[in-house]
Amino acid sequence: MRILILGGDGYLGWPTALHLSVRGHDVALVDNFVRRDWDQELGVESLVPIASLEERVRTWATVSGKEMPVYIGDLCDGDLVDQIVRDYDPDTIVHYAEQSSAPYSMLDRRHAVATQMNNVVGTLNVLYAIAAHNRDIHLVKLGTMGEYGTPNVDIEEGWLDLTHRGRQDRVLFPKRPGSFYHLSKVHDSHNIEFACRIWGLRATDLNQGVVYGQETEETRLHPALATRFDYDGIFGTVLNRFTIQAVLGHPLTVYGQGGQTRGIINIVDTVQCIRLAAESPAIAGEFRVFNQFTEQMSVRQIAETVSAAYPGDVSIEQVENPRVEAESHYYRAAHTGLLDLGLVPHLLSDTLIDSLFRIAERHKERVSPEAIRPTVHWRATANALAGAQ
Amino acid sequence: MRILILGGDGYLGWPTALHLSVRGHDVALVDNFVRRDWDQELGVESLVPIASLEERVRTWATVSGKEMPVYIGDLCDGDLVDQIVRDYDPDTIVHYAEQSSAPYSMLDRRHAVATQMNNVVGTLNVLYAIAAHNRDIHLVKLGTMGEYGTPNVDIEEGWLDLTHRGRQDRVLFPKRPGSFYHLSKVHDSHNIEFACRIWGLRATDLNQGVVYGQETEETRLHPALATRFDYDGIFGTVLNRFTIQAVLGHPLTVYGQGGQTRGIINIVDTVQCIRLAAESPAIAGEFRVFNQFTEQMSVRQIAETVSAAYPGDVSIEQVENPRVEAESHYYRAAHTGLLDLGLVPHLLSDTLIDSLFRIAERHKERVSPEAIRPTVHWRATANALAGAQ
Repeated sequence: MRILILGGDGYLGWPTALHLSVRGHDVALVDNFVRRDWDQELGVESLVPIASLEERVRTWATVSGKEMPVYIGDLCDGDLVDQIVRDYDPDTIVHYAEQSSAPYSMLDRRHAVATQMNNVVGTLNVLYAIAAHNRDIHLVKLGTMGEYGTPNVDIEEGWLDLTHRGRQDRVLFPKRPGSFYHLSKVHDSHNIEFACRIWGLRATDLNQGVVYGQETEETRLHPALATRFDYDGIFGTVLNRFTIQAVLGHPLTVYGQGGQTRGIINIVDTVQCIRLAAESPAIAGEFRVFNQFTEQMSVRQIAETVSAAYPGDVSIEQVENPRVEAESHYYRAAHTGLLDLGLVPHLLSDTLIDSLFRIAERHKERVSPEAIRPTVHWRATANALAGAQ
Repeated sequence: MRILILGGDGYLGWPTALHLSVRGHDVALVDNFVRRDWDQELGVESLVPIASLEERVRTWATVSGKEMPVYIGDLCDGDLVDQIVRDYDPDTIVHYAEQSSAPYSMLDRRHAVATQMNNVVGTLNVLYAIAAHNRDIHLVKLGTMGEYGTPNVDIEEGWLDLTHRGRQDRVLFPKRPGSFYHLSKVHDSHNIEFACRIWGLRATDLNQGVVYGQETEETRLHPALATRFDYDGIFGTVLNRFTIQAVLGHPLTVYGQGGQTRGIINIVDTVQCIRLAAESPAIAGEFRVFNQFTEQMSVRQIAETVSAAYPGDVSIEQVENPRVEAESHYYRAAHTGLLDLGLVPHLLSDTLIDSLFRIAERHKERVSPEAIRPTVHWRATANALAGAQ
């Protein structure tokens, strides 16, 4: 299968590319390196040093014998997207190329607008390129569990069988997310569903939980194949951030009461999920949605799990929640679609957390402790940029 | 009350400004004249000649003795929006300033992207300006009934009391609209609801039906106060288009079977609705939604009504539907919120249609008949521009 990965230089795009390549697929990458630019803007960087994309691809060719064509460019350039899709002629497009941080989108007006523009326009351009070139291309789009928010009812996989005043319909699951970033993905989902309806496109929208971990079987093969490990208050996900705090001897900072429950997923399962979705495409005209996570835990539970796994003393500290969100709520979300396709989950384990501790320990001199604090406040309309700049 | 009207030079923005002014409110206008530019782009124009905004405002000052400050600028310029809101310091912002044509948004990729960008970014900038300047400002935002699509269940006013697997929640009514334009308003609605939630803003989202008519009590006072009358395949709404076709002796062109049912509203009720919403604002933090229409009719019924009202012979012709939509479907939508605020509807009547016939008759030499045909096809990804250019 020919697979084009948008955002192939990112935290998940890169390991996904390696995994698909090792499983016998032809893989090409698209990226504009904007994620590396955001590091510069925010004065932070990946805890684990990462090679340039050029070096990554060169190393992979040496390690695996497989070439990986690279296209450099911005998805907001519609003509370019059109040209890349025409040139590579993929069977599947995996779309990771979005601004992916909620706090970044809440920094101020400029960042909110930039996030929605980048994500919505990029995805529109991809949809048009598929429709114009080959409507059979399967779009695998990364969404987020955060799109749903925290409804007081069970969350289904994208669609809801609704009974209302004695009549029935299958409707899109109503969403009420918690940041302008999450909203951008809600907008994407609506646009994609429409494209499936009018053009007969086939799409899989993957509402992913919070990803943790940093290594996959393939990234371990060579240091130049390593992917990012973000721990800062803007791009760091919660479990990764807690492991760094533990290693530094800092308290694990839980926002508010910590009762916020989230679906979580191991990075090694993320790459599996993408492969499974790609290898069993949606049918023509289908807007297929899977909830891509394997367990659900509250933030406090995650902190307690990390604290219990750490060999030394670790305390848990409650800090004022910078976000506007329910800190205690019902949460139950379906996630059977990917299991049905064959996903064998790697659940959160002490072994995994131990390996994160080892990674954090190895690179702890690179940590900038002030970058860990939350600096973006949802109720404000403007924020100082976070980090050590 | 100080009211700022965004899109104050448009089909509905202008008559709304006059109505609010005559009812004793202080009114200021914002516009960038892009609607007039689109006429140029598409090679069409309003059937009724319209004066420049400068002349409109000057005439209104003479007729009513009331000044109407005008700000010229684009809502996509966030700093400018901020400055205008700070300068005029309104109690209410009425937001009409969006690209409002479904066919225009479906012309090609460029128009789809431009529509979503213009509408989503403009609204984001307005939300940020309110949040930064005065969170008490009431935002009255024009949405559309088209946001809902045609679900097989009753449509409620924005929210749905959902029971699912034995649990309850009040959720946003699930939407599945039929064009990239309609989608842009769905995106807006999600963004606005979020802003109410995090910043405590007060907003009224008005999901308006298809507007018909061209005159209000105020626009009749002077020819320079006239508002637009669009009949072309891009911006013309269905009833207005049918009256022109009747006067020209052309068949009334119904798309497909004509069973598409829509909420419709008289322009004199539109301006009333805006006033009623403004005078009874949403409470702090409330995302209030009203469905702004007074009757529901199928496209075929509208054609038959116009045909029956016309003194001469009129035939109805079925043309291939350029859109992707259900041509026969269940449709029942709640619309009690504005009635509860005091709306007294002006239903579709022969008298109203007669007055439209007279207007069309008076200006029929200005019609460009080839502009009436549908030229934008939903299943295509690129279209020749419509009209007589």
